[in-house]
Amino acid sequence: MATNYAASVIVDCAHYREGERSDEEPLSIPEAAERLHEDGFVWIGLHDPTDEEMSEVAQEFDLAPLAVEDARERHQRPKLEDYGDDWFLVLKAARYDEAREEVEFGEIQIFVGASYAVVVRQGDVEDLRGARKRLEEHPELMHEGPVAVVWAIMDKVVDDYEPVIDGIEADIDEVERAIFEEGEDQTQRIYFLRRELARFYRAVHPLLAALQPFERQSVQHVSDAMRPYFRDVADHLRRLDEEIAMQRDLLDGALNANLGQITVRQNDIVRKVSGWAAIGILPTLIASIYGMNFDHMPELHWLLGYPFALALMATLSFSLWRFLRRWHWL
Amino acid sequence: MATNYAASVIVDCAHYREGERSDEEPLSIPEAAERLHEDGFVWIGLHDPTDEEMSEVAQEFDLAPLAVEDARERHQRPKLEDYGDDWFLVLKAARYDEAREEVEFGEIQIFVGASYAVVVRQGDVEDLRGARKRLEEHPELMHEGPVAVVWAIMDKVVDDYEPVIDGIEADIDEVERAIFEEGEDQTQRIYFLRRELARFYRAVHPLLAALQPFERQSVQHVSDAMRPYFRDVADHLRRLDEEIAMQRDLLDGALNANLGQITVRQNDIVRKVSGWAAIGILPTLIASIYGMNFDHMPELHWLLGYPFALALMATLSFSLWRFLRRWHWL
Amino acid sequence: MATNYAASVIVDCAHYREGERSDEEPLSIPEAAERLHEDGFVWIGLHDPTDEEMSEVAQEFDLAPLAVEDARERHQRPKLEDYGDDWFLVLKAARYDEAREEVEFGEIQIFVGASYAVVVRQGDVEDLRGARKRLEEHPELMHEGPVAVVWAIMDKVVDDYEPVIDGIEADIDEVERAIFEEGEDQTQRIYFLRRELARFYRAVHPLLAALQPFERQSVQHVSDAMRPYFRDVADHLRRLDEEIAMQRDLLDGALNANLGQITVRQNDIVRKVSGWAAIGILPTLIASIYGMNFDHMPELHWLLGYPFALALMATLSFSLWRFLRRWHWL
Amino acid sequence: MATNYAASVIVDCAHYREGERSDEEPLSIPEAAERLHEDGFVWIGLHDPTDEEMSEVAQEFDLAPLAVEDARERHQRPKLEDYGDDWFLVLKAARYDEAREEVEFGEIQIFVGASYAVVVRQGDVEDLRGARKRLEEHPELMHEGPVAVVWAIMDKVVDDYEPVIDGIEADIDEVERAIFEEGEDQTQRIYFLRRELARFYRAVHPLLAALQPFERQSVQHVSDAMRPYFRDVADHLRRLDEEIAMQRDLLDGALNANLGQITVRQNDIVRKVSGWAAIGILPTLIASIYGMNFDHMPELHWLLGYPFALALMATLSFSLWRFLRRWHWL
Amino acid sequence: MATNYAASVIVDCAHYREGERSDEEPLSIPEAAERLHEDGFVWIGLHDPTDEEMSEVAQEFDLAPLAVEDARERHQRPKLEDYGDDWFLVLKAARYDEAREEVEFGEIQIFVGASYAVVVRQGDVEDLRGARKRLEEHPELMHEGPVAVVWAIMDKVVDDYEPVIDGIEADIDEVERAIFEEGEDQTQRIYFLRRELARFYRAVHPLLAALQPFERQSVQHVSDAMRPYFRDVADHLRRLDEEIAMQRDLLDGALNANLGQITVRQNDIVRKVSGWAAIGILPTLIASIYGMNFDHMPELHWLLGYPFALALMATLSFSLWRFLRRWHWL
Repeated sequence: MATNYAASVIVDCAHYREGERSDEEPLSIPEAAERLHEDGFVWIGLHDPTDEEMSEVAQEFDLAPLAVEDARERHQRPKLEDYGDDWFLVLKAARYDEAREEVEFGEIQIFVGASYAVVVRQGDVEDLRGARKRLEEHPELMHEGPVAVVWAIMDKVVDDYEPVIDGIEADIDEVERAIFEEGEDQTQRIYFLRRELARFYRAVHPLLAALQPFERQSVQHVSDAMRPYFRDVADHLRRLDEEIAMQRDLLDGALNANLGQITVRQNDIVRKVSGWAAIGILPTLIASIYGMNFDHMPELHWLLGYPFALALMATLSFSLWRFLRRWHWL
Repeated sequence: MATNYAASVIVDCAHYREGERSDEEPLSIPEAAERLHEDGFVWIGLHDPTDEEMSEVAQEFDLAPLAVEDARERHQRPKLEDYGDDWFLVLKAARYDEAREEVEFGEIQIFVGASYAVVVRQGDVEDLRGARKRLEEHPELMHEGPVAVVWAIMDKVVDDYEPVIDGIEADIDEVERAIFEEGEDQTQRIYFLRRELARFYRAVHPLLAALQPFERQSVQHVSDAMRPYFRDVADHLRRLDEEIAMQRDLLDGALNANLGQITVRQNDIVRKVSGWAAIGILPTLIASIYGMNFDHMPELHWLLGYPFALALMATLSFSLWRFLRRWHWL
Repeated sequence: MATNYAASVIVDCAHYREGERSDEEPLSIPEAAERLHEDGFVWIGLHDPTDEEMSEVAQEFDLAPLAVEDARERHQRPKLEDYGDDWFLVLKAARYDEAREEVEFGEIQIFVGASYAVVVRQGDVEDLRGARKRLEEHPELMHEGPVAVVWAIMDKVVDDYEPVIDGIEADIDEVERAIFEEGEDQTQRIYFLRRELARFYRAVHPLLAALQPFERQSVQHVSDAMRPYFRDVADHLRRLDEEIAMQRDLLDGALNANLGQITVRQNDIVRKVSGWAAIGILPTLIASIYGMNFDHMPELHWLLGYPFALALMATLSFSLWRFLRRWHWL
Repeated sequence: MATNYAASVIVDCAHYREGERSDEEPLSIPEAAERLHEDGFVWIGLHDPTDEEMSEVAQEFDLAPLAVEDARERHQRPKLEDYGDDWFLVLKAARYDEAREEVEFGEIQIFVGASYAVVVRQGDVEDLRGARKRLEEHPELMHEGPVAVVWAIMDKVVDDYEPVIDGIEADIDEVERAIFEEGEDQTQRIYFLRRELARFYRAVHPLLAALQPFERQSVQHVSDAMRPYFRDVADHLRRLDEEIAMQRDLLDGALNANLGQITVRQNDIVRKVSGWAAIGILPTLIASIYGMNFDHMPELHWLLGYPFALALMATLSFSLWRFLRRWHWL
Repeated sequence: MATNYAASVIVDCAHYREGERSDEEPLSIPEAAERLHEDGFVWIGLHDPTDEEMSEVAQEFDLAPLAVEDARERHQRPKLEDYGDDWFLVLKAARYDEAREEVEFGEIQIFVGASYAVVVRQGDVEDLRGARKRLEEHPELMHEGPVAVVWAIMDKVVDDYEPVIDGIEADIDEVERAIFEEGEDQTQRIYFLRRELARFYRAVHPLLAALQPFERQSVQHVSDAMRPYFRDVADHLRRLDEEIAMQRDLLDGALNANLGQITVRQNDIVRKVSGWAAIGILPTLIASIYGMNFDHMPELHWLLGYPFALALMATLSFSLWRFLRRWHWL
């Protein structure tokens, strides 16, 4: 007996034959299950299904029980599990929250068999409809069967990594400017950017290993014609992987540079402070001298002794100031 | 002649046939040894056995002598030793002591043959009864024989690593807050967290190598049906391994950030101190000036000369204070 | 129907038979396409073609569609894609802008088939005519077919990496001199040189992987005679790769040395400042003493008391100065 | 003609047949050489032989000339050389000199053939008699031939590494306490411990590679029964190797923590110094004020003006002290 | 027609048959070329030949053209190029200039065929005659043909690396002493030693890869008897490689220790300076107090008021000095 699916759970559910969508309207799960034995394949997109909803799909489509159990717990690492006839694939979708300088992750799980592709989107991640639309516009790819779905979603997910990298790069540029132009301490910001980068790396890097079987040796259901497409995705991913490594290296360098600049500034402060102290001590010394109580101090009796002393103080201070200025001490 | 086992040594001892427990009550070691030649297998759980107790079990079950000798010395690294018909497996159980911020380890040793699984728990580690109970509820797994016991215990041990990681993560969060919000020096705490993480890594990482034979190529007595289960454990372990690597990296970053913050604070202190020194030196200079002994200093003879001097001191000090304030020096 | 190519797009287009150029004048694209079925091969050089211009060439020469799509997006990593009969190769050309201390990159894409080599130069990179000229002077190499074109261009591109390395090395020398001889802070410069080096590394390093198939096992259309030539390029590249690694290491060392020198200088400043402060405090103390109001202070009544006090101040200050000088404090 | 061996050179020399020692008394070299053609094998232990003594043994036992030449020069890295019928093995024995915190090394060289094991101990290293005694008590092992000697000596040498690791660990504990509890600078000690660890690592790590042939694929003269014994040694060595890596990491962390603590202490010093300076400057300012020469300063004429001024100085200084105390500045 | 070789170019040129030198006197190049078709082989040693001189040798001996072109450009990395029948080998000779603390490099190129070994020495490197002499004294090795020449030269070059390592080690010892005993800043020296070590590493490390084919699988013209000799060289090289790695690590540690010591010394300076400042401020405060103008200050009227004040100043300063001394502040 069919569960009542919450309205938002089934994003779309369609049967494709010879690369063409059979029905315009989304099918229900049981309708889709019936089509499994026909030619072509069924593509179901789910969003945050409950455990019961997931169980029914699993039963109708005869999904591998271990894969289904796996799918239940979130926060898995990207991976490809091969269950003989079927595979189970986990991907991490990512989005950069520019304001909080944090990477947000969602999880995408794909169950693939000879005649179905069940795509489960967990969490608040980018809609995948773009992937379906793009594939529906290329019947020659859709004709390749469920593996084309895998490709289309991977391609979309990896494309969506691009703005994350760009966002972090923009923040690194800001950090560089703050350090070298404004001389601001960036320790905290660098620390947290580095942490986000490490989290992002953990989403991106294991996917490379999961992509290898598609790219190199033949996985079941993958035709030779699809291989260059997967190689293309892998290539993109490798570039992102290298960029993450480079950004990480930049941030490490920036942390060191930041510390260097702080230390340089400390030197400046000590120099400036001591310079001004010297300028302040000179007149004090002169005042102390004319405060001595000797009986015979001719200046004390001059009519202009007092202005003379004040002028002496000012002159000496000013000369010292100019001197320190010229020697780049101030 | 049978040794008298201390009450707490034999945790449980049972014979399983076709996935079902044969007797409700625990068997004695000699009883169990007799069942070895029947169908099914025997599962013995021991806790901190003495050398003599261990020797008797070894004799009754004909365990590999080198493995038994190995088992005697604690503090081994996780490993799988293949003795042809039998294997010997060493695991590290872990628990996080939140108060002392230390990871505590116990050792679990498993002797596996075609018809027995002898599980020895050394030290003050988590009870493994959960693993037995779980397996008794899944006769289809228990039916796989001793290898199912290995899986169940590995799964339990690896699941118990999770709270360790979580505990360390919570401490890292506290360290981050202490550094960036409260500006406290965290050098010592970071140092010791890093040490605990290194110790934990030494328990987790070698287990991955020990799991590989189960996961990839066939080890003796391991059916194809069990493989995905081991793959699942390995996958979990790999995720923990990556998380340890990331936490370690975070701690390295935190140590640098901590040092950076200390240096920044040093700048602040020097700046503040010198600012206040300047504010204190100005009135001293004025007092020195009016302490000079010139005959002709008109202010000295003013009726309000003294209050005027005090006011001058206060005004100059206050102006300097405002000036330094505006330039973010104080 | 043929597109009208912008004057500057087609750099050269020729047909080669038995190592010799068939026509002195450049061919048009359609003319070249007709020659594809004759003996020999066609070599087209394009510079910044528009999408339409590229499309026509792709159609006439039947280039692999995925490769053409790839070529459209710039900023790819160096790679070799094998499409069975054809390959697609991406290279990064580099130039060092000495004034801005930045490495500038262009992209070179090569489509290679049994009877054609289409070379697309993207961006403001060094002209490749040198490669064509060199090859036309060596008919025995040109006779090897399109693979010779690949070699000639790779060789040219890798040779052009040399001045980049030299430019960065010269800058590192300057940095070393600035740190150790002039004692200037070089944090910012080191940071940006390191960044440029990382960018350059990303152009050089992946090319090694792309070169491997030419060097080791036979790729299609590559004769044994060509192999040593590719090995030569690979060898050159490996040396550059090692030099980048060494330069990077030098810059890391320089950053540390720079920080060390800053800290040493800070010690010097603190020492100097405090030395001069001591020299300034001594006379102030003496002046304060002779400013005391005791009834019985014989010096106050001496005729030469005042000059005596001044001389005492000068003598003590000078002695302290000499003393600090001798102890290397000043 | 036989050389006269120095008394201490031949530690022991015996012939073993079927696991049993043939003669109780040590044999002379020529006697031993005669037994080579009988069943069983000869085991000679030498200590610091001269070149001539070594040459005679080499001639009598027909040792591989290159191996003998190798043996002459000390300071080799641990290695296994396979000369077809014979092998040559180099091991490093280690001892920790707790007082000087230095690791001392000796060299052990083993020449192994089908019917002999010549063990040369170079330098002031632990006696190996324990290994011989242990083996003589296990005839079933001795029966395996010269390979059992190799195992027994390796096992002894690796066991003797344990106290080195323990000694260094105890020193690291002391360093931690010194840094975090006593706040002492430990830079020098950490540096030299790190150096000793690096030297020790060079003795331990290459031995792992030398052990591999014994452990994995069959080396000549090594029976399957011996393999688990070598695996056991290798396992021990791997654990030591990991512990060295961890200790090294701890020392790196300790160096950073040490620097962090020094910097924190510097902040404390600057804060304290400036606090006390402020407390000292306040009364000076007041004294200066009352040293001014204004005609009209009522306090100067008070009977208790002087005590009032002193009290004011004390009160202000004390208040400032309490204030700084409360703000954790002092 | 034969070129006239500069006197110093041909170091020696001889033909060897059955391990024996055929003629005592050096042959001319054309004479040598004629012997190529006889039994045995020709060994030519050249030093800094001009391009023409090199060309003639290449022509007479039919050297691989690409190898000859390679040889023309200096500054290659060590490598072994296999041209089927012939090989081409590049080595770096090294010498340590103790005074300038720099490693100087020369280049040695060896062209090897079935019946010749052409050894070209480029730059100001150690004479290789020792290698020839040694081989002429071992006809059984010389009998192995040109490969023995390769071994003899490699062995000599690698032996000559030893004093370089020793020289750098001596400098590191000096650096350690300077840091820990004399407390001198060693930043600059460490930086440049590290650079030299990196340059030396680039000469030593790639040679290991070039040696592998000789050591492991059979290269053409290399008999089994020669293999242990090459293994010996490789072993030596591996030890040097490890020592370089260790020295590099020591220098990294020394740089950190150096920075630590500088920071410790900074603490000392700040502490000392502030201590002396406190000692100087106390008497100034007392002088200020007795400079106040109160009507009623009994001490001012004491006969011994002035000496009393001076004594008070001295006593207080001395007490503070002792106090700070006892607390290890000074």
